[in-house]
Amino acid sequence: MNIEQIQAAAERASGHIRRTPLLESPAINALAGRRVMVKAECLQHTGSFKARGGWASVSALSPEARKRGVCAMSSGNHAQGVARAAQFLGAPATIVMPKDAPQSKIDGTRSWGADIVFYDRATEDRIVIAQELTQAQGFSLIPPYDHPETIAGQGTCGLEIAEQAAELGIETADVVVCAGGGGLASGIALALEAKAPSMRVHLAEPEHYDDWGLSLKAGQPQSVDISTPSICDAILSPAPGTLTFPILQAHEAKAHVVTDKDALSAMALYFKHLKLVVEPGGAVALATALKHKDQFTQDTVIVTASGGNVDPDLFSKALELS
Amino acid sequence: MNIEQIQAAAERASGHIRRTPLLESPAINALAGRRVMVKAECLQHTGSFKARGGWASVSALSPEARKRGVCAMSSGNHAQGVARAAQFLGAPATIVMPKDAPQSKIDGTRSWGADIVFYDRATEDRIVIAQELTQAQGFSLIPPYDHPETIAGQGTCGLEIAEQAAELGIETADVVVCAGGGGLASGIALALEAKAPSMRVHLAEPEHYDDWGLSLKAGQPQSVDISTPSICDAILSPAPGTLTFPILQAHEAKAHVVTDKDALSAMALYFKHLKLVVEPGGAVALATALKHKDQFTQDTVIVTASGGNVDPDLFSKALELS
Repeated sequence: MNIEQIQAAAERASGHIRRTPLLESPAINALAGRRVMVKAECLQHTGSFKARGGWASVSALSPEARKRGVCAMSSGNHAQGVARAAQFLGAPATIVMPKDAPQSKIDGTRSWGADIVFYDRATEDRIVIAQELTQAQGFSLIPPYDHPETIAGQGTCGLEIAEQAAELGIETADVVVCAGGGGLASGIALALEAKAPSMRVHLAEPEHYDDWGLSLKAGQPQSVDISTPSICDAILSPAPGTLTFPILQAHEAKAHVVTDKDALSAMALYFKHLKLVVEPGGAVALATALKHKDQFTQDTVIVTASGGNVDPDLFSKALELS
Repeated sequence: MNIEQIQAAAERASGHIRRTPLLESPAINALAGRRVMVKAECLQHTGSFKARGGWASVSALSPEARKRGVCAMSSGNHAQGVARAAQFLGAPATIVMPKDAPQSKIDGTRSWGADIVFYDRATEDRIVIAQELTQAQGFSLIPPYDHPETIAGQGTCGLEIAEQAAELGIETADVVVCAGGGGLASGIALALEAKAPSMRVHLAEPEHYDDWGLSLKAGQPQSVDISTPSICDAILSPAPGTLTFPILQAHEAKAHVVTDKDALSAMALYFKHLKLVVEPGGAVALATALKHKDQFTQDTVIVTASGGNVDPDLFSKALELS
């Protein structure tokens, strides 16, 4: 993985992926005790940064492979990112989704013309299902994070962060990224190492899903039990990825944990001060910037608001905290 | 009023006012039966386009006038726009606000360091209160729409629409603007006449507040009864402005009416498909594009999402429709 792959992904994405704004609110700055810049990826096509990796991965396929079709496993954001890219690029898409995925994500995936195959998180293995489909149908599998093109696509978000920060005269910053498998965080880390080397990536994880924290401490990938309920559905990965772990280990990234309630409070702040709809898994980075102030050393913290695909009932719960 | 005043306002605003994104959702396009581009002014500083007019007006004052201070009357969005500009530009600000303004707007205005003087909509005249304050204290009055610099500031939004549409290859469009006093609509109309003359401005009004529709039909300003309740607090003006009416009359703007429920439904669509928090008065333009499809002739309609300063309870009501 190198910066050239990310730049190539950015070129292929031109005109198809949004340069999302980097937003700021004085009220949030005051709460955080430093400048907080929000990379508003909830405003990306499909409502999350996953449109980047989806576009990068599908656009890298040969015309023949596109014609055969693509397959992805996802609780909903990667699903929509791949489905959108596939629809635009002429590839049939089949998505393996958990039965309990948020309705908004199921609807969104269908709206991009994808077929959905549902599975039961507790009793079935999505990897087995996806591999069977892939082999039987000749589909190209588009992994959600452990895939060079997916990481390169998410890295385009890091290129934008470096550019937008430079436009504002910001050279150094702690960059807090919502982390499941680590695709976005590792892509951003690679982009920043090349374009803004004074910036350091931190990982934000939900309580009980601190696989990154445990793994970085142990020096090798560790797994967590994924049966504990959490509202942060987008980032409930059991363990760091095989490709993403060494990238973030070499980057000396640090991981921080927040609770579901912290995530809801951050969603309420996004609603009130920035007029953004952010989902729980997309709000953990801001929650981290507010909860773990002593873990940051720079005057500026940049947080990803990674996605906004949240059902109305859950969003209303967050509003009760605003 | 001319394009040079708008361009001068844009130059003074550089670095202080956001170039808000022009967003699109395939799902909303499908509902509208044409391409719908959303000018997301809810992402503007202070959560509404009013930051533009506030900046233009306060930055046009002499250093002496700034030192004496500024005064504005507003239900909340203009209040915050003026208060923010005043704080940055070193002018004490006093805002005359109705007692029943949304709490989020009261909090927002205070957060920019302004003094608030409350009045009762039913029994007091805000113009009298503001004029008394202005004369007694030497304040400069910053009117919410009937003021050349306010209109020029809002016109910077029109400059951006023309530029952003051109970047996307869009030359002709119906441009639907949420209308209270008509400051934003007249500013946009002037900017488009100079920069995108094939675009035509339409006005979106809440039910019972169709003063623009009545006035444009009659050929002269008409007033409506402002005692009818409406959730569209930002745009409940009794009559078109003295400066704004001739601009929009000459532009041959057409006005359209939507209900509170239409506005709530549009807010739910903004939540679901674009991850934007939009207030009722800011959602009437999208509501118009969906309800009055037969009133538009172009393949593209551009709508302003003028503001996002809405209290959580009301937003939750909109979510019930999503």
